Amino acid sequence: MKVRRPRRKAEETREDILRTGETLFREQGIAKSSIADIAHVLNMSPANVFKHFHSKSALVDAICDRHVNHMIGRFNTFDEPVPAPERLTLVVRKLMEAHLRDIRENPYFLEMIFVMSETDLPSGRHYKSLLEGLFYDLIRKGAEDGVYHCKDPGTAGRHVAAAFASVLHPVFLAAADEMELRERCAGLCGLVNAALQNPLEK
Amino acid sequence: MKVRRPRRKAEETREDILRTGETLFREQGIAKSSIADIAHVLNMSPANVFKHFHSKSALVDAICDRHVNHMIGRFNTFDEPVPAPERLTLVVRKLMEAHLRDIRENPYFLEMIFVMSETDLPSGRHYKSLLEGLFYDLIRKGAEDGVYHCKDPGTAGRHVAAAFASVLHPVFLAAADEMELRERCAGLCGLVNAALQNPLEK
Repeated sequence: MKVRRPRRKAEETREDILRTGETLFREQGIAKSSIADIAHVLNMSPANVFKHFHSKSALVDAICDRHVNHMIGRFNTFDEPVPAPERLTLVVRKLMEAHLRDIRENPYFLEMIFVMSETDLPSGRHYKSLLEGLFYDLIRKGAEDGVYHCKDPGTAGRHVAAAFASVLHPVFLAAADEMELRERCAGLCGLVNAALQNPLEK
Repeated sequence: MKVRRPRRKAEETREDILRTGETLFREQGIAKSSIADIAHVLNMSPANVFKHFHSKSALVDAICDRHVNHMIGRFNTFDEPVPAPERLTLVVRKLMEAHLRDIRENPYFLEMIFVMSETDLPSGRHYKSLLEGLFYDLIRKGAEDGVYHCKDPGTAGRHVAAAFASVLHPVFLAAADEMELRERCAGLCGLVNAALQNPLEK
């Protein structure tokens, strides 16, 4: 039998709460799961759970943040040896498809997205800044290769991320028709690439 | 004294329901107002209200649609004698500011926006198509003037409307910081204008 220390490390407890929270949210929805339910499954006092997460939305936020890191992590290593415009198109499409898959496979993601968009949680801002960083890298590399014309890839990265909101922000993906989304995604990539390749761009 | 016909025209009744619904939603919120409340104020049976609107969300949709028509109507007449890129920037900024004003002045708009985005109502699609038409006109005119390079203003109008989602879709305006929104709006206008002015664009 496994010997348990009377006081477990805070990090482990936090991890247990995250995992149990995610399971309950997935099985019965966010609205119907309480901090007390999570505490009950873990055989803890609700007060102990609250020590780690001050509210249910703080817990939703932390779960969401793990997904964000996992999601963007997959694309940071994405480095196909193709010209910058094709690379941008590939990255955006793969990210959009990954979101669509998540939403299809985990219906509770939809609820999470609405909790997120109503409360402006830190994980939403974190996703935004990771996305902006991803575009910054793509644009900087394209400018180095002489394919993109852009003096300030940092600012361009932010604006490009904003231009893709309607295909990369989960709140849009939830309601939209997949065929229409793919067409829109291709159109936005064309528009953004035309802007970044404009030789007259200051 | 005004003589009232025993059976009023359906159009007038519909108008009364819309006006009363909007007043109640504004005063006590959408979630807390029922079709029965509206019927009570109008001294009608709920069944009679349901004859005109099959559900509360159909009523929210109809109210929203009136706002959409009013909103876009203001911009169809917008025809400043300035070059196309400046005109596009002016139109987008004025539309965004009009949305921000609505949200500030009518807190119930926020609730309406969330009802809308969760249920994908026809008025949302109507707003989208009016917006696409507005960009179609701007792009077609810019192409006629030789400032924009674009063979298919219809398709371009749809993609440009999508690119502005993060400053023209109310769900984004609700949560965002106004300073950041204005900066993003200017950046997106720059990006879209660079794309449309790209002389190499096919």
